[in-house]
This record gives sequence, C-alpha cells and structure tokens, in this order.
Amino acid sequence: MTGQTLRPFLTRATQLYPDREVVARTADGMTRYTYAEYADRVGRLANALRAAGVERGDRVATLCWNHDRHFEAYFAVPDLGAQLHTINPLLPADDVRRIVDGADDRLVFVDPSLADTLAAAYDPDAFESVEQVVVIGSSAPDLPVDSVTSFETFVAGHDADYDPPTVNEDDPAGLCYSSGTTGDPKGVEYTHRMLWSHTMAITTPMGLDIADADVVMPVVPMFHINAWGLPYAATAAGAKHVYPGPSPDPADLVELIEREGVTLTAGVPTVWLGVLDYLDDHDADLSTLSRIVIGGAAPPERLIRAFDDRGVEVVHGWGMTETAPVGAVSHLKPDLRDADYETQLAKRTKQGLILPGLEFEVVDDAGERVPHDGESMGELRVRGPWVADGYVDGPSETRRGDGAEGSVGDDAVEDSWLRTGDVVTVDSDGYIELVDRAADVIRSGGEWISSQALENAIMSHEAVREAAVVGVPHERWGERPVAYLVDDDADRDALVETVSARLREDYPDWWVPDRFEFVEAIPKTATGKFAKTDLRDRRDDPIDGAVAVEPPGDGDWDWDWDGDGGD
Amino acid sequence: MTGQTLRPFLTRATQLYPDREVVARTADGMTRYTYAEYADRVGRLANALRAAGVERGDRVATLCWNHDRHFEAYFAVPDLGAQLHTINPLLPADDVRRIVDGADDRLVFVDPSLADTLAAAYDPDAFESVEQVVVIGSSAPDLPVDSVTSFETFVAGHDADYDPPTVNEDDPAGLCYSSGTTGDPKGVEYTHRMLWSHTMAITTPMGLDIADADVVMPVVPMFHINAWGLPYAATAAGAKHVYPGPSPDPADLVELIEREGVTLTAGVPTVWLGVLDYLDDHDADLSTLSRIVIGGAAPPERLIRAFDDRGVEVVHGWGMTETAPVGAVSHLKPDLRDADYETQLAKRTKQGLILPGLEFEVVDDAGERVPHDGESMGELRVRGPWVADGYVDGPSETRRGDGAEGSVGDDAVEDSWLRTGDVVTVDSDGYIELVDRAADVIRSGGEWISSQALENAIMSHEAVREAAVVGVPHERWGERPVAYLVDDDADRDALVETVSARLREDYPDWWVPDRFEFVEAIPKTATGKFAKTDLRDRRDDPIDGAVAVEPPGDGDWDWDWDGDGGD
Repeated sequence: MTGQTLRPFLTRATQLYPDREVVARTADGMTRYTYAEYADRVGRLANALRAAGVERGDRVATLCWNHDRHFEAYFAVPDLGAQLHTINPLLPADDVRRIVDGADDRLVFVDPSLADTLAAAYDPDAFESVEQVVVIGSSAPDLPVDSVTSFETFVAGHDADYDPPTVNEDDPAGLCYSSGTTGDPKGVEYTHRMLWSHTMAITTPMGLDIADADVVMPVVPMFHINAWGLPYAATAAGAKHVYPGPSPDPADLVELIEREGVTLTAGVPTVWLGVLDYLDDHDADLSTLSRIVIGGAAPPERLIRAFDDRGVEVVHGWGMTETAPVGAVSHLKPDLRDADYETQLAKRTKQGLILPGLEFEVVDDAGERVPHDGESMGELRVRGPWVADGYVDGPSETRRGDGAEGSVGDDAVEDSWLRTGDVVTVDSDGYIELVDRAADVIRSGGEWISSQALENAIMSHEAVREAAVVGVPHERWGERPVAYLVDDDADRDALVETVSARLREDYPDWWVPDRFEFVEAIPKTATGKFAKTDLRDRRDDPIDGAVAVEPPGDGDWDWDWDGDGGD
Repeated sequence: MTGQTLRPFLTRATQLYPDREVVARTADGMTRYTYAEYADRVGRLANALRAAGVERGDRVATLCWNHDRHFEAYFAVPDLGAQLHTINPLLPADDVRRIVDGADDRLVFVDPSLADTLAAAYDPDAFESVEQVVVIGSSAPDLPVDSVTSFETFVAGHDADYDPPTVNEDDPAGLCYSSGTTGDPKGVEYTHRMLWSHTMAITTPMGLDIADADVVMPVVPMFHINAWGLPYAATAAGAKHVYPGPSPDPADLVELIEREGVTLTAGVPTVWLGVLDYLDDHDADLSTLSRIVIGGAAPPERLIRAFDDRGVEVVHGWGMTETAPVGAVSHLKPDLRDADYETQLAKRTKQGLILPGLEFEVVDDAGERVPHDGESMGELRVRGPWVADGYVDGPSETRRGDGAEGSVGDDAVEDSWLRTGDVVTVDSDGYIELVDRAADVIRSGGEWISSQALENAIMSHEAVREAAVVGVPHERWGERPVAYLVDDDADRDALVETVSARLREDYPDWWVPDRFEFVEAIPKTATGKFAKTDLRDRRDDPIDGAVAVEPPGDGDWDWDWDGDGGD
C-alpha cells in the first residue's frame, strides 16, 4: 500500500497514453506535444528546480495564465515534495506582495505579460525569500529583482530523466490564497492526499465524469484553485489537455473547441455569456463539446437554455478554496430525467449534490440541522478527505480572524467540519442552493432572511440601479433588514411602495425591509463586490421600537454578534 | 480533513437517494426496500452487534450468498470499527475451519442453506472464539455450536438510530482469504482507506463507470473479494442494488435484469455462457443492460461477440484478492474506437489498462522492466493505495511461505510493490495480458515460455483431452518444457508430430516441448485446476544433453530454483 501522491497519475498517463496530446495557446502561437514529451519536460523542470536548490517543503510560486509551462510546474514542483503556490495576478499588488512574503516563496515563475504585475508587487523585504524569478519564454525582461532568468535558460542542460525523492502523501503539494469579499487572502494548503482524493472524486460520473476520450480545456485560470482540479483529473483519466493561454477571447475559445475537438471545458458564467454572444454572430461547429462546467457563480437560466439548444450540457458546480475546490455538482438525478424541462432547470441552477466521499450538514445558529425542505436556511458545513483543516501560517499581519466578514475564519473548522460561511437550503432531492453568505444573512426573530434574495428582487425593478440589504440591530428582533438603493431619478416614495409590494408577493411580509435608504453608490470592494461591511458599520443607527411586520418567534433570545453562528 | 472511511458513502446515499431501492432475491421471495430503510437496518444491526459485545478490532464472519442481510453487514460491521470476514463456503470444510480458527471470528452469520457447510467445518477448538452463530432468517436450525440464534431474534428490539464510534481509516474493515491453486488460503485485510480508494477508482469511467442512474447486480459472490467492490461503489454512486440470492440460474438472472432494469452486472465467464445458452431458447428484453463485467478468467471471444450482438458490452477486468480486487479494466482507448472489430476484440479479451491511482511494472527474473511490445513476458507488479501490504497473521500452521507455488508468498511485497505471481505481456497500447503464472512459466535459456499458451494450443487438437506443460530441469538451459497429455486413444506418434508442427507454426521452435508424455489423467487441485506442483515433483527425471531446438542465449546462468523471480 502506497500513499496517495500525484506522480502515479502522470506515470500511468505516460505509460498508457504516450501519444495523447497536451496543447496550449501561447503568446508565441500554439504548442503541441505528447504525454511522453510532457513527462520529459516535467523531469527536466524538476531537475532544474532541484539544481536551483528547491527542496522538499519549499514553496515555488507561479504568476501565470493557463499554458503548457504552467502545467509542467503542476507536476514538477509536487514531485520534488515542494509546494506549488499559484498566485492570482488579479489581486491588488499589496495582496500579491503580502502573499509572497507570507508564503516565503523561494522561486517565482512569471509570464512575460505579468512581469509588470510582479514589478508592482515587488518590495525587497517581502521578496526576501525569493532567490530567483523565472520568466516563461526564452528571454527575461528587466525586473527590479536580483536574479531573473528565462525559463529556457533555467531548464537548459538538465536531463529529462528524473529520480523523484520519496514524497509523503501528507506533504503539501499546492497552496492557494482565497480571496474573500472582505478580509485579506488566506492560504489554503493542499496535500498530495487531498489532491488525490479530489482528483478521483471529480473524475467519477457523480463529479465531472472525465474519461480518456475527453479533451479537457480549463478556461478557469490555473491560479484559481488549480483550475478546479482539471489538470490533475485530466491526467488521471489520460485525457487530452487544451490550455487557452493568456486572455482568450470568445473567438479564441470557439476556435480551440473546434480545432482541438474539446469535449469538456470550464469557467465562470461571464466567459460563456461572452461565447454565446459571439456564437450569435458566427458559425461554429461545437459538435464535439458535450459539457461546460460552470462555477464561481450560478449559471443564469438563459445560459443553460442557450447551450442546451446547441446540444451542450451546462453542469454547475459548487466549491471553495477550502474544498480544493469541488464539493458539489448539479447533475440530474435519475428520477428527474423524465421531469419537464422547467423542473430540471430549477435543479440545474442550484449548486448541486454533494460529491461521493464528502459529508455535509446544514445547521442553524443553534447548531441544529435544518430540514431538507428547500426552504429552511442554514450554514453549509462540509467535511471529507479533500476539505482543508485550516489555514497556513501566512502573512501574520494580515490575519484578522474575521470569520464573520465574508470568508471563513480561523475558527472555521470544528471536529473536521468546515464552516463554509455559505447560507443554503437543501431540497428534498438533496440539491444544495446557495442563498446568502453567513455574514450577510439577516437574523430576525430567530429566523433568517436572505439578503441576496432581497437584493435580486429589488434590483429586478427597472428604476433600481443597485441595491444592498443589510441587517440593522433591533432591540427585540435582533436584526431587521434595511435596503440601500441607488435609483435612476425615480419617484422614490412610489418606488418604495412598488418594490415593497413586489417583495410581499414572493416573500414573507416580515422579510420586507423596514427602511429603504437612497444613496449615491453602494460601497464596493477591490473586486467590485458590494462592501456590506461598510454598510453594516452604519449600524450605530439602529431601528427602534415597532417594525413594519413582526417576524415569527418572540425575539427573546441572545443574539450572537460575533457572527460565528453559535449561541 | 477527515479520514477515508466507508460510512460517508452510506450517509450520502441516504441523504440524496432515500427512495432508491435495494432489492434482493431470497429463499423467501423478493425483498425490496429503500436506502433510507437500508440505513435503518444497518443501524439496527450495528446496535445489535454492539450489544452482542462486538468491539472495534473484532472480526465478524459471514457464510452467505448475495442478499440484503449480507449487504447490511457490509456497512454495519465496519461502522463499528470491526472487520467483516467474508468466508467462501465453496472452500473445503478443512479450510473453512482453519480460516475461522485463524481469524478468531467472534460471531458468524450463516445462510440457512449453508448451515450444513458450517456444521461440517465445525470443531470446538477452531471455533473457540465464536461466541454466537446467527442464522439469516426468522428461525435457527440445530447446529453443533453453543449459541445459535436467528437474525430476526438477534436484531429484535434494537434501535435504528445508531451512534457510530470514531473509526480510523487505517482500521481493518474487511478480511478475505485468497484461494491459490496450491497452498492454503491466506488472509488479506482491507482497511477503510483501501476500500475507499478502490471504491472511488472503480466508480470512475476508467474503472467500471458507475453512476446513480445505474442498477447494479453483482452475481459474483459477496464472499468473493466483496463482490469485486460493487456493493460499496454502488452505494457511493447512489445506484440501485439488486442481489440475486442463493444459486441463481440463468432464468433467475434474466428475470432480475428484466424486472429490475439492471444496467450493470458482474460475474465469471461461466455464468454468462449459461445466460447466453438460456437466451438462445428464450425471449428476453435486455434493453436496460449496458454492460457485464467479467472477471476471474478472460471472457471467451464468443461471449463478447454474442453480447455485442445483443447490444450489451462485455467489460473485462483483472484483479486479485491482494488488490481489493480490481487492478485493471479492459476498455477501449479513444484511438481504438475506430479500429476494426477484430482489433478491438483482441484488446477487449486482454486483462486491460491499469486503473488511475495504481502503478504497475513488468519485470524479468533479473528485476529489469521488459518492453511494452506485446511479446516480452515478465511478472506483473502493482502498487497503490488499495494494494495489500501483506497477509494477516492467520492460521499459523497453514503458512508455508510457498510463494513459488501459485499464490503470492509472504515475501510478495517489496517496497510496496506487490509481486502478483502473474506473468504478463503489455502491448504498446498499455494493455496487460496474462500469459501464465510465475510458478508455471518455463525459464529456458534466460527466456520465458508460457505453459498456458502451449497447453491451450495443444488442447486445441481434437484428439487431446487434457494437456499440462511444465518446466523440467536442464543442465544447460535451466528448464525445458515437457508436455503431459491425456489422449483419446490416438496414434500417439502421429499426434505428437501433428501437435509439434502446429506449435511451430504459432510459436518459436524452441518453445516446442522436448518430451510429450502420455498419462491417464492430469493431477488436479481441490478446485479442479491442474496441480502442476505434482507434475513438477517428477523433476527427478531431468532432461539430459541435447534438446530438440536450442533456445536463444547461451544458457550460462544460474537458475533460480526457489522461484522467487530474483537471481
């Protein structure tokens, strides 16, 4: 019995599928080689890293898009017993700097197109651990770091034959910093064993159903939680890989699908909405494409419908950095295969069914499990072999333990249960649906009100440009909802009346906000999301006395203000 | 991060598929219940076992066919941290006795139809550890043991709510004794983690591709390496289970397939040859059945063809007790999908492609890897998370360390590599083909000759009833093949000439046996296989001097007589 390490996936692919291809769109055109050559490249890179002094336990960072060289690091670094730290180049320079500092990266691989990002983040103190920056390609631009070399120079002269050291399944293989809507990034480590378990789970039919005949194109960035694990799973299956390179536009993606025969691709909804727009105006042959995995946000119904019309199945998945990332996939259960299309659609837009190998529970503030009735809300907790136990000892000055504020905190794991910070319902078929973040849900009279549901409903009014709903303290009811609106020069009294009336149609009366306040703009985070923390800071303006419609319950309970979900 | 234990598979199935069915054909007719009820039954049984004093680390044996009660034990026993010891009732009574003695089973579940088998094996000393025998059903027959109770009495009054103890992934969950062609049974323990890994691997498309929409009917006995892991994999997927009960005949199997909508079934070739004969004379609707997994022996080509004609895919798998059991599955690689049917068939009858998560190598006597050319023979070695590290401390008086004689010995595992004892070739597509047992292959002049290949070729002559080929010592060449034939009153000289000529057509000249000896019968083992050990014991009659055709090489090497494959 051996440990669950990554290397055997590659060994098997090389032995069984030596001629199957790895294809990448790069700044210099397409690269194309086989698994056999890929294994040689991995060996050469591992030898070069070893010669550069990288040892078991070290961290090696990448600041790269989706391409062949990045994929080579996916195996070469863990094969050394070192840890691949994929940095998100879209983070603010401050965050990149703190992440490199906290991770003590010894070496950074960077795309030429991201050299400026690295330069902007550079600071001699924060980068003290970084002995070398390796720029992907055959030349290296000027960078304000001591040792810069090109990738080709870095690997030149090194042998493809590589003798791997003994790697333990509990050795960290990956590192990814999660970016919450608030709070600083927190590092999540992936051991070999976690990635092995995740790989097997997403390869099953209940996951993403990946086989050797698949041609897998991850559009989700490789710095975003290992491109949802697809590079490892495609290797385990012996599938063909297609990497779309830096900034692919819809035309690039469609061309790659057509030319390479892509069967499975994955990315956030925005990407696929762009592809749909492109397809409206261009002929394309998508006949090989069988499914698109959508994550990061729920796929709009029109996206699912439009791709169904084109014979492509949209598969929605839920996950987070802490779950490596896939935790649930929304595929149709056998007894729903004969249901009408609208019923199916309602299931397919949910976050889905937990994967085999994981456990889940949905609990209220008292820690009691809520019924699976599609209505009762609670915080989603998950546990299993690929769920993180906690966070790395990262940038200490950035650790604020702010679990209440939109990302999981240091106390996020209890008895191996990860408190996801996601408020969900589970229907009687077992489909999980995300309704809010735990920090945003409004706790009123012992019941929960989804701020997201209210916001979406309010914003569906044509005169409302933006809306954010937050809980404001209330002496008796704990919290009551208050809506902040940005309007389009409307008759505000009439607007409030219409919106309230609409809300009462779809939600319990006591969900209707007690106050509607008009503001110039909703404060936003660096990544463009509503900064509800800023709105909640206005809580020095509590609601007194009577509320419009009283929530059920007697309101006679101690409200837990630290937001950790317990009493 | 939690351990890889079995229980979460059941928990998930109960939460997501509470109404999906578990169906069994029993002596009392069909039983039919849901996963929700199954979980209750498992809980009740676990509570009853706990009340009976079964604790973590204990062993609980079953002597049962494939039915619902047996499946309940599959989860209830490991849920306690105890170990499910599935006894093969087809073993000689002596073996059953020694196995129970060696395993120190505390409790034995037995089918009423197997009560006589238990009685025959009973011996007060060997059964000293057995505190209770539980007979499946509502009544208990007389048995020569102290405490006999019926299953219904055993579980009566116990609650369905069950609070499981903490179970470690390294706790043994299963125990199965392998039956080699020679040597006594050896116990292989399966930890939770091994079964978890095996479950995930066979669930993937590269394994047996099991989804929630499947209806899985294991015909392979549940005492035979956990019915190849199907009960666990079907639960992980949320599939429907169908158990065919004691001694199903072809009519029973076809009826179950039709009535329950079986999509996936599994068993040895004999079963499916019987079903084919039945189908020749009976109308049947097999439209739901998509695939039959064949193991234990290679499927004859005619079996694959006949089921292909009926729209049912035959999937061949290789494995052994020590690999829990599935190690390879022979499914068509993408580039073979367009090949002609005969080419495909040649691949599909091989033992297949190693599963993701495992490593394999094929080595000669010097420990060197042989090329993957479809011709070079070597011993197959495998390692991975579901490959056994060794054998349990079983019946000590039966341990003979006879690794050379048809089953893996105590020295079978080296650096986590399991020496399978199977001699194989691997073709350039990576398909493994079994050509002999390591103990049976004839090592002549540093090259290997497959005894099985010669036997099959010789037996294809109409006048040959049986043939066994063994290596006989030769001073210069190490070994030379000698054939033992049982004939049908033939002209023996002419027969030898014809057979030799035929062999020379298909094999190198130096493969042709140097002697053909006619015997009354080939000695056989208890399970009907050729007892080649007995034939090899005649090695006091070595071949001297010149041989008919000299093998390649110079013969100048030290032959390794202990059969452990090394020099």
